[in-house]
Amino acid sequence: MRIDINSDMGESFGAYTIGHDAGLMRAITSANIAAGFHAGDPSVLRDTIRLAKASGVAIGAHPGFPDLVGFGRRELNATPREAEDFVLYQVAAVAGVAAAEGMRLQHVKPHGALFNMAVRNAELADAIARAVAAFDRSLILFGLPGSEILRAGRAAGLRVAAEIFADRAYEPDGTLASRKKPGSVIHDPNVVVSRAVSMVKDGSVVAVDGSVVKLGADTICVHGDTKGSDELAARLRRAFEDAGITVAPVGA
Amino acid sequence: MRIDINSDMGESFGAYTIGHDAGLMRAITSANIAAGFHAGDPSVLRDTIRLAKASGVAIGAHPGFPDLVGFGRRELNATPREAEDFVLYQVAAVAGVAAAEGMRLQHVKPHGALFNMAVRNAELADAIARAVAAFDRSLILFGLPGSEILRAGRAAGLRVAAEIFADRAYEPDGTLASRKKPGSVIHDPNVVVSRAVSMVKDGSVVAVDGSVVKLGADTICVHGDTKGSDELAARLRRAFEDAGITVAPVGA
Amino acid sequence: MRIDINSDMGESFGAYTIGHDAGLMRAITSANIAAGFHAGDPSVLRDTIRLAKASGVAIGAHPGFPDLVGFGRRELNATPREAEDFVLYQVAAVAGVAAAEGMRLQHVKPHGALFNMAVRNAELADAIARAVAAFDRSLILFGLPGSEILRAGRAAGLRVAAEIFADRAYEPDGTLASRKKPGSVIHDPNVVVSRAVSMVKDGSVVAVDGSVVKLGADTICVHGDTKGSDELAARLRRAFEDAGITVAPVGA
Amino acid sequence: MRIDINSDMGESFGAYTIGHDAGLMRAITSANIAAGFHAGDPSVLRDTIRLAKASGVAIGAHPGFPDLVGFGRRELNATPREAEDFVLYQVAAVAGVAAAEGMRLQHVKPHGALFNMAVRNAELADAIARAVAAFDRSLILFGLPGSEILRAGRAAGLRVAAEIFADRAYEPDGTLASRKKPGSVIHDPNVVVSRAVSMVKDGSVVAVDGSVVKLGADTICVHGDTKGSDELAARLRRAFEDAGITVAPVGA
Repeated sequence: MRIDINSDMGESFGAYTIGHDAGLMRAITSANIAAGFHAGDPSVLRDTIRLAKASGVAIGAHPGFPDLVGFGRRELNATPREAEDFVLYQVAAVAGVAAAEGMRLQHVKPHGALFNMAVRNAELADAIARAVAAFDRSLILFGLPGSEILRAGRAAGLRVAAEIFADRAYEPDGTLASRKKPGSVIHDPNVVVSRAVSMVKDGSVVAVDGSVVKLGADTICVHGDTKGSDELAARLRRAFEDAGITVAPVGA
Repeated sequence: MRIDINSDMGESFGAYTIGHDAGLMRAITSANIAAGFHAGDPSVLRDTIRLAKASGVAIGAHPGFPDLVGFGRRELNATPREAEDFVLYQVAAVAGVAAAEGMRLQHVKPHGALFNMAVRNAELADAIARAVAAFDRSLILFGLPGSEILRAGRAAGLRVAAEIFADRAYEPDGTLASRKKPGSVIHDPNVVVSRAVSMVKDGSVVAVDGSVVKLGADTICVHGDTKGSDELAARLRRAFEDAGITVAPVGA
Repeated sequence: MRIDINSDMGESFGAYTIGHDAGLMRAITSANIAAGFHAGDPSVLRDTIRLAKASGVAIGAHPGFPDLVGFGRRELNATPREAEDFVLYQVAAVAGVAAAEGMRLQHVKPHGALFNMAVRNAELADAIARAVAAFDRSLILFGLPGSEILRAGRAAGLRVAAEIFADRAYEPDGTLASRKKPGSVIHDPNVVVSRAVSMVKDGSVVAVDGSVVKLGADTICVHGDTKGSDELAARLRRAFEDAGITVAPVGA
Repeated sequence: MRIDINSDMGESFGAYTIGHDAGLMRAITSANIAAGFHAGDPSVLRDTIRLAKASGVAIGAHPGFPDLVGFGRRELNATPREAEDFVLYQVAAVAGVAAAEGMRLQHVKPHGALFNMAVRNAELADAIARAVAAFDRSLILFGLPGSEILRAGRAAGLRVAAEIFADRAYEPDGTLASRKKPGSVIHDPNVVVSRAVSMVKDGSVVAVDGSVVKLGADTICVHGDTKGSDELAARLRRAFEDAGITVAPVGA
């Protein structure tokens, strides 16, 4: 039994600092590196790749909508053609900076609203998968279990990784409960950690209606912008290891 | 005797169209493709690479200052570290989109104020050369004969190409006369063409003070945003060929 | 009987030129001036206001989504709070530049996707109307007849102007037929002109299903970015005048 | 004897937070509010104006270069025309949002590199002053004593305010010593406070070469982005009051 721990990284921008990258890098196994459209800038990007390399953490591109002021969290009605091209551009930029630092990309994880829209929007999911496959067919595409993006990734000949969220409530169909619903975000670190371990061990989670939802779990997301996220990631890693679950990059 | 004809391409942006890319592609041998910071967007970038491929034109990255409203033409006092990183990012993006289209980059030509500042600013020139060399040591770096950027490129282990401008007056030290000086831009296509041929054949140009300046000439720039630039490029190519000068990409 | 003719203006940006502002200014009575978020820049904005003043054309702010590469034409899921604040900011900027040129704003017309979303989205429409009313209660808010934005404008104590489009097909409920439907955009200038005159005279239009839709018509939009738009505007103006319809700014 | 205490405010952006605005507002008398080009966004701008109003703090516009990633701290070779227009745009935006909140602008303080360049660049200083005067001749323009911007402001018919920096070393000509020089930034709060009081009382400062430089002092700047800046501002205010110096907005 094994799991990858991923987190969004490199989301600082110019004079603005966000996240706990240095602390998180000690616990996670895969870093999703902001590509400059929703967050990040060329120097932050390069520094984050260097930090990942020094920390032995695998890296992926984290492309988002071109919406810096919205941090990529607002749905944007881009055409599939536009989405395909801006995902390709962002993956290319991160991969090329990584190459200059002697690293290869392991994966691609769409960010924020792009990630969320690709759960159900098949056209958008196909556009993203086409962009990734056109760039490098060996990349692993991250997405929710059962989502359109995983379907699209497989159809495009890519490896995919099913991603779980231990701090979020699930609907019976395996999607995440809306953040607007009470109780949809779990704040107690003890609950998050024990939930994470059982999600990986059992391959399932108890949904908001009490039903049991089967979920593949290749990688688990730790949110990096909340206070104490670095400590949570460290606890999570220890809990997995204590439970006999190997913690390693999904592409290893 | 041989020469490469290059032009800036892919500088349209969203709903905004600029340049005569389709016409120019029929005459030039190397396209400098805007990388999205001073001009261009991910879809324009990809379309331009496809057009270059279909036209048999070699491609290069054309990184500029992050100044869309200024079209990269305004000097910006970025640090060498910032410049190195945003050049690397832009080269990586163009190279990766090209790879997805089955093309390899031939060269890098800095744009506008970045190009001009790198003529004399050694620190900036070194930063640009470091970025290119870190990404791919086989790339050819374009710059003015005698400029810091060519010195820096050689020092970084890169091939360099000396670029001439047939529509611009030269100072006795081989730099371009300021656009603010009367007569510094040559508008008569007949003069431009005959001047171009003699610059390549003689390896020299008559400067504003009447002195003869020795200039290497590996590639000649055709400005793409002026009316009739596509016809000028076609005339230039014929004139070179009529004079027995081979017209081919600098990296061929 | 009277009508205002409006057109989007000042949508050029830096080195990029779009539209036929100078020609259109001779025919229209109200200019919707881009505020810098979807198009326009501070110098274009000021020049356009000067041109309107010299042409005796009334001016309005034309706020859009912060989406330059998408020209404000893509739906963005901004919160009402965000929309209220970026509309206020844009209206303030245009009004202040106008004041420096000795002009007062007459109206506000939301741009592109913001305009379209405010037809049906009541929360967004209220946010826009709140922003306009907070800035200046004497401004006239433009919108489709029967739209949420007109309802919201009236509720906020603003004057509103019902806007018609002579080159677009209408649904039976008075909304514009989607551009994706065949025949939804009318290209024949003769049809557009005669349709415009009858829409103003009759206060109604024949919808796609043949039914007659009652429409108030305070102002008619001429699209400025299509070829020949300046000539169409001139023809339209003459046709209105020939039909005995007074052509004047809506706020006059 | 009196002094105004000013600080840069509203420089957060989207998901990014910077500065200690709430704490500083309790001690300062004038807030320089970022206008969205180097920092700030429409919602941050509005919230900051509301905070200033609730705190009884006078407000000014804080226009900067259009360089978000560089936080407006990098010199940009904009033309005087461009600078005039983007300063006007930014002042208009801040003034209009303030008007919607029932506040009037007191002053304008250029930001970062724009402020620094306007110390010696007469053309740029005149452009800034023209923009401010065109918008509202009652605004007070902030600048270094002896700078071109104060000269330009007076020539444009504006009131000006001489600004001092208690945490910076001065050259014998009254300009700030470059941050690159050792000792040019004073970090000890005790020194900063006592220096501030004597600068206001004596109307002079001891320069880096030991000479005494006469300086008018209408307002003193507290940097808001350093740790403890809110406490420093509070101490500074108490020290002024203890020394019998009235602390009040420069326009009061």
